[in-house]
Amino acid sequence: MSDVLKIGREILDSQPFSKLLGAELIYFEVGSAEISLLIRDELKQQHGFVHGGVISYLADNCMTFAGGSIFGDGVTAEYKINYVRPAIGDKLIARSTVLSSGRRQAVCECKVFVVRGEKEVLVAVAQGTISKVEKT
Amino acid sequence: MSDVLKIGREILDSQPFSKLLGAELIYFEVGSAEISLLIRDELKQQHGFVHGGVISYLADNCMTFAGGSIFGDGVTAEYKINYVRPAIGDKLIARSTVLSSGRRQAVCECKVFVVRGEKEVLVAVAQGTISKVEKT
Amino acid sequence: MSDVLKIGREILDSQPFSKLLGAELIYFEVGSAEISLLIRDELKQQHGFVHGGVISYLADNCMTFAGGSIFGDGVTAEYKINYVRPAIGDKLIARSTVLSSGRRQAVCECKVFVVRGEKEVLVAVAQGTISKVEKT
Amino acid sequence: MSDVLKIGREILDSQPFSKLLGAELIYFEVGSAEISLLIRDELKQQHGFVHGGVISYLADNCMTFAGGSIFGDGVTAEYKINYVRPAIGDKLIARSTVLSSGRRQAVCECKVFVVRGEKEVLVAVAQGTISKVEKT
Repeated sequence: MSDVLKIGREILDSQPFSKLLGAELIYFEVGSAEISLLIRDELKQQHGFVHGGVISYLADNCMTFAGGSIFGDGVTAEYKINYVRPAIGDKLIARSTVLSSGRRQAVCECKVFVVRGEKEVLVAVAQGTISKVEKT
Repeated sequence: MSDVLKIGREILDSQPFSKLLGAELIYFEVGSAEISLLIRDELKQQHGFVHGGVISYLADNCMTFAGGSIFGDGVTAEYKINYVRPAIGDKLIARSTVLSSGRRQAVCECKVFVVRGEKEVLVAVAQGTISKVEKT
Repeated sequence: MSDVLKIGREILDSQPFSKLLGAELIYFEVGSAEISLLIRDELKQQHGFVHGGVISYLADNCMTFAGGSIFGDGVTAEYKINYVRPAIGDKLIARSTVLSSGRRQAVCECKVFVVRGEKEVLVAVAQGTISKVEKT
Repeated sequence: MSDVLKIGREILDSQPFSKLLGAELIYFEVGSAEISLLIRDELKQQHGFVHGGVISYLADNCMTFAGGSIFGDGVTAEYKINYVRPAIGDKLIARSTVLSSGRRQAVCECKVFVVRGEKEVLVAVAQGTISKVEKT
């Protein structure tokens, strides 16, 4: 495991909400991140699909890691997400990359897939701004 | 309690993820909804603030209720959210209203506040599209 | 005419693209702005409605003025817009207010209306971030 | 020139606002589109950069073409755009692809570049929803 990934996992593990949901950092390098999440009944809405809030959480957090890989520490300033398909399957995977970065902000995109058996199916796409956390 | 609010509460209670997080429907009428959520440690990130994913969930879900109040049943097609301040306090409150609606879609806005003692402080603003769930 | 409005009009007049389109600053105070635009054939798309690009321009620019009223000089960092109805009429009016502002950024919302005779009809809603222009 | 591109150019030429700005359809196939625009002083703001409204127009219109390539005729329902760098150069190029499409809507992304001599530099990224125009 790379040092960067190890540090990333420690950060994810220090987020109580990410622990509650069960997110796992799979890949983490400068400019990109990948987070997965096992689907369980607690994460669903009334129609039996994964709740949109879970997918938003995953996209948001994955972009924070991608952007944070540039800055050391980052927070999501804003993002937008389009849900393109109900999420039905075993696992979610979010993959985010930095599209552009400056001194204080990075613009990232993220795609969220649901894994059904061998197949990955796109369920959401997101775009947003990650801000550097300024030490004070 | 109005019949509309009663129905709304039953829907919210049928969402396992909303139960996991502890969301409560406070107000529900045609064109608007209000959902609250007690803040507890499990919902935080590593800096001790409420995790953005929780705030996104709340905004997303509240807009789904506001839009769904027009259509009977709705799902979020897309939205954007700006986090404007770290959420530190006792409780979150999301308030959403429908800005415009057509046959199949409603555009909604939502403001999310954190309650600290007697004060409400704005922590996020969102805007998105709720689509009618078509019976098949 | 207030001094603030006078300064705002000089800024708008110094934007060649705003002159090309014919935008006029109607109202300008700290935290809010209103810009109007007469509809003419050159601003339309193939179905006879005002082109979405014109409406986006107006929302973007109006939010820049609202945010810029806080900072002295601002640029749009990002925004999202929902078109809610085709724009058919005599004039467009955009109204923007600041929802929240910090040292370097302001989050604004904007509503765009089309004027038909005596009536104003909502055609688009937008939300975005205005960044302070840092003097170097 | 392909038949699809020829039809696309006729549509773009039938948009008075696109003629006013000078947009040209460069590439058009099912699922993607590319539109370019020569930069001239009329399209600038007060700091000498291309006005954000021009960039928004280009991203919006390019996504409408990408999405419209699926449906025959499409309109932008909503989009968000992040400006990542001031646009200074000779020409703008927007490239859009469809990320996902259903019966009535397509979710598209668009990147806008400025051309300076031989180089292309990213100036904005957008993501949005194109709706099929229903014949009535």
